[in-house]
Amino acid sequence: MSRDFPIRGSRRCKLVISFHGGGYHGWRSAHNGRGVEDQLRAALGKLCGSSVEIVASSRTDSGVHALGLAAHVDFPPGARNIPAAHLALALNALLPADVRVISAAAVGADFHARFSAREKEYRYHIWNHPAENPLRTHDAWHVPRPLDLAAMRRAARDFPGTRDFLALTSRRGAPPENPVRTLTACRVTAAGNLIAIRISGGGFLYKMCRAIAGTLVEIGKGNLSSDAVPALIAGRDRQAVPMNAPAHGLTLWRVRYR
Amino acid sequence: MSRDFPIRGSRRCKLVISFHGGGYHGWRSAHNGRGVEDQLRAALGKLCGSSVEIVASSRTDSGVHALGLAAHVDFPPGARNIPAAHLALALNALLPADVRVISAAAVGADFHARFSAREKEYRYHIWNHPAENPLRTHDAWHVPRPLDLAAMRRAARDFPGTRDFLALTSRRGAPPENPVRTLTACRVTAAGNLIAIRISGGGFLYKMCRAIAGTLVEIGKGNLSSDAVPALIAGRDRQAVPMNAPAHGLTLWRVRYR
Repeated sequence: MSRDFPIRGSRRCKLVISFHGGGYHGWRSAHNGRGVEDQLRAALGKLCGSSVEIVASSRTDSGVHALGLAAHVDFPPGARNIPAAHLALALNALLPADVRVISAAAVGADFHARFSAREKEYRYHIWNHPAENPLRTHDAWHVPRPLDLAAMRRAARDFPGTRDFLALTSRRGAPPENPVRTLTACRVTAAGNLIAIRISGGGFLYKMCRAIAGTLVEIGKGNLSSDAVPALIAGRDRQAVPMNAPAHGLTLWRVRYR
Repeated sequence: MSRDFPIRGSRRCKLVISFHGGGYHGWRSAHNGRGVEDQLRAALGKLCGSSVEIVASSRTDSGVHALGLAAHVDFPPGARNIPAAHLALALNALLPADVRVISAAAVGADFHARFSAREKEYRYHIWNHPAENPLRTHDAWHVPRPLDLAAMRRAARDFPGTRDFLALTSRRGAPPENPVRTLTACRVTAAGNLIAIRISGGGFLYKMCRAIAGTLVEIGKGNLSSDAVPALIAGRDRQAVPMNAPAHGLTLWRVRYR
C-alpha cells in the first residue's frame, strides 16, 4: 500500500505507469516532446513547481504499450510536498488521456526503478484469424494465416535460461557490449483467436521481445522448425532471426521488485 | 466450414460480422448512413452490382461493439455469383476498417439469422482500478471504486431463467408487448483488474444487458444488496433499476444456431 510523505531521509517515490504507445516515440524523451517521459516530466513540473527527474525501469520502443512500467522520481527539497496517496490522481488530471499513473508510493532512497527490478514481464498479442478484429487493431498483431500453437509452445520452451542472446537483438546499430541476459519464462497462451506470448526476464536486449515473437510466429506458420531455437541462439547471428514482430502488439505488462 | 455456391434452391449466405461500435449509431440503418448495416449494404451492393437485403441476428445500440454478430443475405437472381469462400475477403476489401466480415458460408433457405438463433452471448467489460487503462478506454467501462466481486457473482446467479424482465428494459418509450425472455447464463469473471460479465440467452429486451451490468456494478459498490435481484425483477418497475451501464463496455460476443 502507498505510504505518505515525508519518510525520514527519503523524498523518493515509485510510480507505476500505463500508456497507449500509439502516439509516442517510446518512453524516452524525444526532441519533439513525443516521448512518454516528456509527458510525465511536464505533469510533475506543473505539480511541483520545479523540474523533477524521472528514472524508468525500461525504455520501450516507439509504438510499444505499457500496462505497468515502473519509474522513480526524487522530489527536490524546494518542491511542494504532495502526499503519495494523492499523487496519482493529481498527475492523471494533468496527463494526456493515453498516459495514466496507476499507483504512486513513497519508497526508500535505496529503491531504484531500473537497478532494483527483479523481473519484467512483456506480453505480445496476436489476433490469429483471416479477418482483422476491429476491437484489437491497436494492441494485437493481425496474423491471418492459421498458426500451429502446439509448435509455438514447444519452441517457446527453448528460450528461457541465462545465455548470449546476440541473435535476438536489432540488426542495426552497434552490437551490445554484453549480450547475456536471463529469460525466466516464455509461454504461449490462447483465448479463442487471441494468442498471447508471455515473456519474463531480468532484462532484455533492444527489440529482443519482438524478435522472439517474430520467430515464434514463423514457427507457427511452419516456415521454421519448432526445434530451431537452440541453434538460432547459439549461432549469434543478428541476421538470422526471420523478422521482428511489429511494435503495436507488444505491451510491457509489469515489473517485479525485490 | 464454408460451402461454395450454388447450393440447389438456395442463394442464402450466413455472415459473421465484427465491428467497433464507436463510430456507428448501432447496427440498424440510420438516416445519415451511420448504421453498421449501411456499410454492409453498400459493400454488398458494389460487389453484386445490385441491391442486397441483409437480416441480422440482433440490433445493437449505438456505441455497442460486436465480435460475432450474425446475419443472412439472399443474393438476387441477377446478382453476380461470388463463391462463399471468397465473399469475406471481397467484402473486407470494400468495408471500412472498423467493420469486418469474419466468415461467410452458404446456407439453406430455412436458415434465418434472427429466428434460427438459439442463443446469443454478450460480454460486458469493466476496468476496475482507480486509474483508467489507456488500452481499454474504447471497450471497457472504467469503474474507479473497488467492486466486491463475490457479491456480484452471488447476485449474477439470480438472473438466469424464463421470466418477465420488464424491470430490466429501457425506461423510455412504450413497454415491450411481451417482456418474457429466457436467460441461460450470467457469470462474472475477472483477469486482474478487468472484469467480464458474460450474459447468454435466447433474446434480450432493449438495453437489458446494460441494465444487468449496471445493477451488478451497484451491487459491487455496496449500494445494493447482493440478494436484491429477485425482488427487482419481480417488481416489474422500469424505474427501479439503478442505471444502465454505458454502451461502449458491451460487446455482442457470438450467436449460436440450431
